Amino acid sequence: MKFHQGAAWQRGRLIPVGEASIGVTDWGLTHSDITYDVVMVIDDAFFRLEDHLDRFEASMAALRLKPAEDREAIRGALHTIVAASGLTWSYVSMVCSRGAPEIPGIRDPRLCGNHFFAWCVPYVNVIPKDVATRGAHLWVAKSVRRIGEDAVNPRVKNYHWGDFTAGLFEAYDQGADTVLLTAADGTVAEGPGFNVFAVKEGKLVTPARNCLEGITRMTVLEAAAEAGIMVEIRDVPLDDFLEAHEIFTATSGGGPVPVVRVDDRIYGNGVEGPVTKQLREAYWAMTTRPTLRTPVQRKTDLR
Amino acid sequence: MKFHQGAAWQRGRLIPVGEASIGVTDWGLTHSDITYDVVMVIDDAFFRLEDHLDRFEASMAALRLKPAEDREAIRGALHTIVAASGLTWSYVSMVCSRGAPEIPGIRDPRLCGNHFFAWCVPYVNVIPKDVATRGAHLWVAKSVRRIGEDAVNPRVKNYHWGDFTAGLFEAYDQGADTVLLTAADGTVAEGPGFNVFAVKEGKLVTPARNCLEGITRMTVLEAAAEAGIMVEIRDVPLDDFLEAHEIFTATSGGGPVPVVRVDDRIYGNGVEGPVTKQLREAYWAMTTRPTLRTPVQRKTDLR
Ligand SMILES: Cc1ncc(COP(=O)(O)O)c(C=O)c1O
Ligand SMILES: Cc1ncc(COP(=O)(O)O)c(C=O)c1O
Repeated sequence: MKFHQGAAWQRGRLIPVGEASIGVTDWGLTHSDITYDVVMVIDDAFFRLEDHLDRFEASMAALRLKPAEDREAIRGALHTIVAASGLTWSYVSMVCSRGAPEIPGIRDPRLCGNHFFAWCVPYVNVIPKDVATRGAHLWVAKSVRRIGEDAVNPRVKNYHWGDFTAGLFEAYDQGADTVLLTAADGTVAEGPGFNVFAVKEGKLVTPARNCLEGITRMTVLEAAAEAGIMVEIRDVPLDDFLEAHEIFTATSGGGPVPVVRVDDRIYGNGVEGPVTKQLREAYWAMTTRPTLRTPVQRKTDLR
Repeated sequence: MKFHQGAAWQRGRLIPVGEASIGVTDWGLTHSDITYDVVMVIDDAFFRLEDHLDRFEASMAALRLKPAEDREAIRGALHTIVAASGLTWSYVSMVCSRGAPEIPGIRDPRLCGNHFFAWCVPYVNVIPKDVATRGAHLWVAKSVRRIGEDAVNPRVKNYHWGDFTAGLFEAYDQGADTVLLTAADGTVAEGPGFNVFAVKEGKLVTPARNCLEGITRMTVLEAAAEAGIMVEIRDVPLDDFLEAHEIFTATSGGGPVPVVRVDDRIYGNGVEGPVTKQLREAYWAMTTRPTLRTPVQRKTDLR
């Protein structure tokens, strides 16, 4: 029962998630000099584990982070924590932080020992399940824009969420469920933890820039290709986006979720649209494909 | 000797700085949903403590953070840790993090218990002392811009340093000591931990926007006023900035520091300029003024 709220792997040790921590002088905290990835365990298997590991490795390389653990060790840590937790549906986070310099106060990131850790908790729905079932109400942030690509690369998964959090407060003040941010040029970017899609004249449209290249986005794009739905990956001005038949979000934490309202506009008469439904079902069908699944190894020493 | 590397105050307890930590699911880490301030202890007294507390409180209010501790408790914690550390010159950080929601996975910042903590370590020179003595070499980042004001408010002291860190790596690759970032509009912003000033035709020029309103900047501006030096606080296009007689940086962690080189331009024939020297000396003289000093209370229960 030690791990029933989740487990973590840190400095070679398996510990309860509540005991995993980072020092207050670690640059991962004080400079948000850190990257991460999140893979889901769905019905006792990681979904697209190697794709998430690819993205995590690319993110670390982009930030010049090099932990002691190689890909195999990282993969092993993920299996270990999920097995220990006993969870069959889990949100699994792998993280690499810059660490702290040996000599306190030194401001050179090259002198820090990078620090990999991982933790898992029960499966998280980024948009709560009841909201997803009813259809989400999105608010387009008016007081804040997405951090520019010229400042922080959004394709490197990062914890720079000040813009999202400010937007979330604005959305909650307006009674909405969550927020959509635009880029400085007025095109649609993404939300706190999800990519967005619009369905326009039967075509699927999603932003090309100012967002993470989500693995769920990729899965949805593959599902669309298999279903013969045309796709446009491009800059999407906000007005263009809002002039859609359907809108939905996409994230590992819950898959595609229909949006039935943006600001005061109602979509699909307040219910999920047909293309969203088709792609959402196709997504969940893909999560059962053996080629995309890595069963959790349960032969670990559970202590 | 328990606290000789520094002390921390966390959840009502005085602990060694190396034991102060934050959980890996705290939003202060996972969303950089956190603010902080840093005040220096110089020769056994806090310098401009109430100004730093004012800024810290304004930052917390801007992020809708409300820890259990009020200003008096925060002030008390700072005295406690510095007294315990025995340091007479110290870098003292006060921090407030969003915390973690009671129910893991819930994505609503309003449901988190905010978490104040503080820590102190020996005095930090943001630009190392030998570099400051020789005169710093700045590199103007070419690959990255400062995060926009429309995304993250730079006047709320924050840990969103991805742009700075990318810029630092670029600067080190070029053999420079540190980096200067410009805003998206090409005007000068600030560097990793410091504001910047130029001296042009005997006038002092510093950016009005895209930067923290540094307490050291304020002190330098006051010193300039006292010395009858004219000041311009305005947008400063990069070319305009570089066409200066003198350039210097300003931060609590070391005070004003002369810059003798920016990219391949040499300033003042490679030595500190006269106005920089005058203001740097005036700054250090101001750190001895009783009205700006709060002596560390050493009668605390040291355990
Ligand atoms: C900012 C952001 N955009 C998009 C996504 C969706 O990415 P994925 O589908 O890989 O989970 C996430 C996931 O957490 C995210 O944080
Ligand atoms: C981004 C940034 N700008 C400027 C400063 C200088 O501010 P202060 O003079 O208050 O230390 C700091 C201080 O750490 C900073 O982090």
